[in-house]
Amino acid sequence: MDMDERPLSLVLFSGTDDKLQAAAVLTAGAAALGRPVHLFLQYWALAAFRRDATDRDHGLSPEAGPTGRTAVDDLRAAGQASWAETLRQAKELGDVDIQACSLSMDLLHLDEPDLDPLVDGVEGVTAFYIQAGDGQIIFI
Amino acid sequence: MDMDERPLSLVLFSGTDDKLQAAAVLTAGAAALGRPVHLFLQYWALAAFRRDATDRDHGLSPEAGPTGRTAVDDLRAAGQASWAETLRQAKELGDVDIQACSLSMDLLHLDEPDLDPLVDGVEGVTAFYIQAGDGQIIFI
Amino acid sequence: MDMDERPLSLVLFSGTDDKLQAAAVLTAGAAALGRPVHLFLQYWALAAFRRDATDRDHGLSPEAGPTGRTAVDDLRAAGQASWAETLRQAKELGDVDIQACSLSMDLLHLDEPDLDPLVDGVEGVTAFYIQAGDGQIIFI
Repeated sequence: MDMDERPLSLVLFSGTDDKLQAAAVLTAGAAALGRPVHLFLQYWALAAFRRDATDRDHGLSPEAGPTGRTAVDDLRAAGQASWAETLRQAKELGDVDIQACSLSMDLLHLDEPDLDPLVDGVEGVTAFYIQAGDGQIIFI
Repeated sequence: MDMDERPLSLVLFSGTDDKLQAAAVLTAGAAALGRPVHLFLQYWALAAFRRDATDRDHGLSPEAGPTGRTAVDDLRAAGQASWAETLRQAKELGDVDIQACSLSMDLLHLDEPDLDPLVDGVEGVTAFYIQAGDGQIIFI
Repeated sequence: MDMDERPLSLVLFSGTDDKLQAAAVLTAGAAALGRPVHLFLQYWALAAFRRDATDRDHGLSPEAGPTGRTAVDDLRAAGQASWAETLRQAKELGDVDIQACSLSMDLLHLDEPDLDPLVDGVEGVTAFYIQAGDGQIIFI
């Protein structure tokens, strides 16, 4: 199979802005290579994809500390796209599918209209594995 | 190779109940598809598999916050199986092998009888890779 | 492809000593099996690879708690190699390539001379994917 046909799947669990940004960059990079990318949103990552929530401050990993906080804020002030904007761009230029985990929808008492338009649908873990096929899976 | 013959390997590092629950759901889903699943327990995840410890409260990721704590508690009160129970069920219905990392056993001063019966044995990282073969590896 | 020809890629995001130690052990194990291993350093993991920083105390995951802290300190006092030393040994015995993520270099205002000699270079996410090929990718 050609490099650009192999799907890449990311399970997003963490909802802090640093991990979401890392996930967005890995998504955009794979999409730019022409690979189908599949995101599966669980737990606190799903919470960050609620409608009107993507541009809020979701904090950073505790280890970032004040120095990390300043570094992230400075880069953002210098014009870096947010993770949500990076994902929007990746969806425009490539084949990026974002699905919410049905179990986590229950956990957070969410219905599909509660989610940001970035999210394409809701699916269970079985559907996730079938779409992932034998491509790489990254848990963030 | 058929979908249901490809092994899936999970390295469990984190020992908080939210990450363990995510790992249990990913395990159960793959096992339900007929795939062999191999769990390799390190560090704080291994600590959570000590005998008589699986049903204790292991906390949540810091980012969960009080809202996340309430959501998890509510779902549990509504009858959601714990991660340990989900793993027990996955082992009954499928091919799920759970191994403790020998280096982490040393770190935590544990011997095999100290572990929950969910754990099938102790192995080193080389054995882990050999069992993982070219299947997907997920680090949680 | 033979087991010992398949590359293994690790994206290191976290910079706490427990996660870096887990990554070093997974790297050393794969290198010992003869596999090419590729590390891609982002965010707080990259910060830990600054020159003169690898042997500092980078803390542990919050869930480690005081018991975990003591366990890690005791093992270290008993002679366990640090993660940086484990990586140095892995580079001597096997094919281990460590690259800094160019976006994270910008985030942390780092230039290549600011990094520990363990780091072989700086690359973007596209180069990372090309080097990863269809081998496993682990995000830590």
